[in-house]
Amino acid sequence: MNRYAIGLDYGTNSCRSLLVNIDTGEELGSVVFPYPSGHQGILTDPADPNLARQNPQDYLDGAVTIITGAIAQAKESHPDFNPDDIIGLGVDTTGSTIIPVDAEGTPLALKPEFADNLNAHVWLWKDHTAFEAAADITSMAGKMRPEYLAKCGGTYSSEWWWSKIWQCKKVDEAVFNAAHSWVEHCDWLPGVFTGNEKPDRIKRSVCAAGHKAMYSDNWGGLPDEEFLNALDPALGELRSRLYTEAVDSQVKAGELTAEWAAKLGLKEGLPVAVGAFDAHMGAVGSGVKAGTLVKILGTSTCDVTVLPADAELGELPGVCGIADGSVLPNHYGIEAGQSAVGDIFLWFVNHLVPDSYGASNDEKFIEMGRRLSEMKPGESGLMALDWNNGNRTILTDVRLTGMILGQTLHTEAHEIYRALIEATAFGALTIINRMEEYGVKINEVVNTGGLSVKNEALMQMYSDILQRPLKVAASDQTCALGAAIFGAACGGSVSIGEVQGNCCQVREKTYSPIPENKAVYEELYGIYKTLHDAFGTSEWQGGLGHVMKDLIRIRQEQRSC
Amino acid sequence: MNRYAIGLDYGTNSCRSLLVNIDTGEELGSVVFPYPSGHQGILTDPADPNLARQNPQDYLDGAVTIITGAIAQAKESHPDFNPDDIIGLGVDTTGSTIIPVDAEGTPLALKPEFADNLNAHVWLWKDHTAFEAAADITSMAGKMRPEYLAKCGGTYSSEWWWSKIWQCKKVDEAVFNAAHSWVEHCDWLPGVFTGNEKPDRIKRSVCAAGHKAMYSDNWGGLPDEEFLNALDPALGELRSRLYTEAVDSQVKAGELTAEWAAKLGLKEGLPVAVGAFDAHMGAVGSGVKAGTLVKILGTSTCDVTVLPADAELGELPGVCGIADGSVLPNHYGIEAGQSAVGDIFLWFVNHLVPDSYGASNDEKFIEMGRRLSEMKPGESGLMALDWNNGNRTILTDVRLTGMILGQTLHTEAHEIYRALIEATAFGALTIINRMEEYGVKINEVVNTGGLSVKNEALMQMYSDILQRPLKVAASDQTCALGAAIFGAACGGSVSIGEVQGNCCQVREKTYSPIPENKAVYEELYGIYKTLHDAFGTSEWQGGLGHVMKDLIRIRQEQRSC
Repeated sequence: MNRYAIGLDYGTNSCRSLLVNIDTGEELGSVVFPYPSGHQGILTDPADPNLARQNPQDYLDGAVTIITGAIAQAKESHPDFNPDDIIGLGVDTTGSTIIPVDAEGTPLALKPEFADNLNAHVWLWKDHTAFEAAADITSMAGKMRPEYLAKCGGTYSSEWWWSKIWQCKKVDEAVFNAAHSWVEHCDWLPGVFTGNEKPDRIKRSVCAAGHKAMYSDNWGGLPDEEFLNALDPALGELRSRLYTEAVDSQVKAGELTAEWAAKLGLKEGLPVAVGAFDAHMGAVGSGVKAGTLVKILGTSTCDVTVLPADAELGELPGVCGIADGSVLPNHYGIEAGQSAVGDIFLWFVNHLVPDSYGASNDEKFIEMGRRLSEMKPGESGLMALDWNNGNRTILTDVRLTGMILGQTLHTEAHEIYRALIEATAFGALTIINRMEEYGVKINEVVNTGGLSVKNEALMQMYSDILQRPLKVAASDQTCALGAAIFGAACGGSVSIGEVQGNCCQVREKTYSPIPENKAVYEELYGIYKTLHDAFGTSEWQGGLGHVMKDLIRIRQEQRSC
Repeated sequence: MNRYAIGLDYGTNSCRSLLVNIDTGEELGSVVFPYPSGHQGILTDPADPNLARQNPQDYLDGAVTIITGAIAQAKESHPDFNPDDIIGLGVDTTGSTIIPVDAEGTPLALKPEFADNLNAHVWLWKDHTAFEAAADITSMAGKMRPEYLAKCGGTYSSEWWWSKIWQCKKVDEAVFNAAHSWVEHCDWLPGVFTGNEKPDRIKRSVCAAGHKAMYSDNWGGLPDEEFLNALDPALGELRSRLYTEAVDSQVKAGELTAEWAAKLGLKEGLPVAVGAFDAHMGAVGSGVKAGTLVKILGTSTCDVTVLPADAELGELPGVCGIADGSVLPNHYGIEAGQSAVGDIFLWFVNHLVPDSYGASNDEKFIEMGRRLSEMKPGESGLMALDWNNGNRTILTDVRLTGMILGQTLHTEAHEIYRALIEATAFGALTIINRMEEYGVKINEVVNTGGLSVKNEALMQMYSDILQRPLKVAASDQTCALGAAIFGAACGGSVSIGEVQGNCCQVREKTYSPIPENKAVYEELYGIYKTLHDAFGTSEWQGGLGHVMKDLIRIRQEQRSC
């Protein structure tokens, strides 16, 4: 008898499904649904580039499309496939992507009186309007509760739970007052599917809670009322309408209601796992374990690894999240990441690459990739900083911006594209170095996400710069696969490790460092790190008169060799 | 009776003529000839972005086209026009743009055995292959002849005479040995027209000699043989085949030969003035005088002013040229400039502006200009350094490169274009500040060149950033007008001042600083100057952690006001 699970992966611009045989790993169906609202699924405000919101209706419409679509694909290719053999459903989403809801758990944005109010919509992870709130939380925690900061890399981010809720109170009291509670996107969907969306019933993800809401068993859950009152009495008052317990995704959020079973073409009573963030489920879907770093290379990146719960773990300065059970049960989950990687390339191709490279973005990427592959490291003389969306790790500072340096009158778009890729790789190296400096040993790097399968030139540069072999997870949908694994396991009939063993493979091709690129990339990384520290920290003092000259010298050496 | 003069202006990509009535200023004819060789008239080497050469045949072909064309236009519009009423011809060119010639004065490039050798062609001003030679000359002069350096701003440039000749010797002894002498483009053309092109007869421009070849009456002309021998005995040996005297452009180079008179449609025996550089003749054509700075805004810029010959003038560190008589007789000519201004915008539009702004470069510039005009200073959060072609003044360092900083995921091409314009304006302010710090008072700024008449948005930003009213010279062809003025004066029947008085006017529209932009541009200039000193000098020490945050704060302030 076949056993299947279905995983849903809600990304920044679209959501997708994966229907998988949990004993063989065979993938029977997968459908993508681009969010119809706003620009590429994001509601923006021309007056404020920090603002990024979403429409919760897109999530519901997407669920129907991607689940029924995946089942239809499975039936088409496997005439004997029976949806009743699906044993569980799991969900991952972006985060902290949070929704103000009323006492029934209905998002305010879905109520007529708030339909046109962006503040009543979903506050997407990459909304940075709350940077001042974040700075104030960091400052207050530094004074009152330094232990809170230690768990989130020393700086509380504008992308996270409390910053956004507080910001809402500052800019729109009507929405704040109408919100009985707030829920993470990854908690809301399983709640809706199982009829448990009321705030007093909804299960909360420890992954979201631990990484974004400063939740920890060490201090009894969420930050205490005294601390929240010190920020704003309205936050202290809200605390009792949030939650006291958060659980991992082995736990069932509930069973599928008859109404949603009918809409989705699944059986009523199907176990639905507590949700989690895409990166964590993607890490599980890529086979994360102690010593294995999973890099999810997408619009942004997440770097996820785990340590056994009994390991000695001190502070990891600048690393965003360390939460017990957030990735795998009985492990510390360690999450770092870069605020923008694919997003930087998309920004570049959307705004600065002329049509001489091709008519579409895809054509432009292919042609730029072809031309940059003919170049040697350092040959362009360019150096970039990968901070167009701030720096999440290790500087944890959204008030940073991009930089490109070394342009001549001959610099072409594909050379800048290469410099941008290299900058993201230097950023990735900075993260791994920080982990290893603080005792988190990385023996293996497994990559997943769109860039890891679509961009061979990028992967080779990453291998050269990280000076490590880079593996690529076999599945194209590791986040959805991770969600399916938890969906399967939450019913209790199978373990996470067993499904991982059946489903998590790597591809044949592993990228290996090219020996002759080692020295030049070491030198280029030194320049990157100098600029990183000079522009990214308040401590750095020095001179930069050598930077342009070093890049010109390296350019000449590489062109003449 | 009408009196006319004709001026020829040889630019980087094309040459043009101006036929002017020297008593009324009326312009009767003007023709442009784009050089047909290479890419936009420049011979390049894909392996070396520093190399820029030209084909001397383009100059000769151009002369015929633009002179006969201007005369034809004059005859068309003024049936009574008689070419015999032209009383003189003047020429300006780029520089140091130098030509290796044989003992007859024939450019080696025009001889079959060298026709395919780029080193035998014209070494265009913006050829930067000789950067090492320049550094060695600076170093040697610092040790042996510091007075040479004082006259050229403290650093000898790779764009100049001795650097290029020495570089030729280093990379191509065959060409170096075949060159009986070397001539500046501005000396060669009057020599050809008057049959005086043989190296022992050709008149040399004091403007070229004083600014580029370290020629000065203070030390008996060119650098002495001992110094040249210390660089390379081959240079010491060459010295005797160069020149001992250089003269200003009031002096006649000779009279037009019968052969060239026939080709050009001019009368035999017409006085032809000694040539000079475009910037200096453009300054004269724009009415330069003591206290008046003429800014020639083109692919690069030149900033020219004069001081009376009896003024006290010490060193002007970082200002490229201070030469007696180079601009106006009996005045010190003071020349500064930026290595690339329009060239940076052209680079940007050629390589990084998508077709959504328009189908042609012109359309793209117009659309970007429209959109950037709707922005406030600082609103983009961007800051650039204008060094894509190095920095001529005040850093005198070609081994510098461009920089753009402050990009987000929303930054668009027109915002970067605005930041590039502002960067060139900050560079211009740095030059004026340096002049005034060292006692060269600027009471008036007159602008000329393509950008000053075509780009109103740029001119307004320049006025805001320089905090001065900016006038624009009336003629579209001030360089050619200056050449015509010297052509008229070299025959002795009329003075330079008299023709300037008749012909040099400013336009009705003067750009004035917008008061509310003053404070924000002062703050932005402070950031520019910090980056300028940090990346451009070896002395600067400090921290830059505030830079991105300051730009973000200014962006927010400007967007919300």
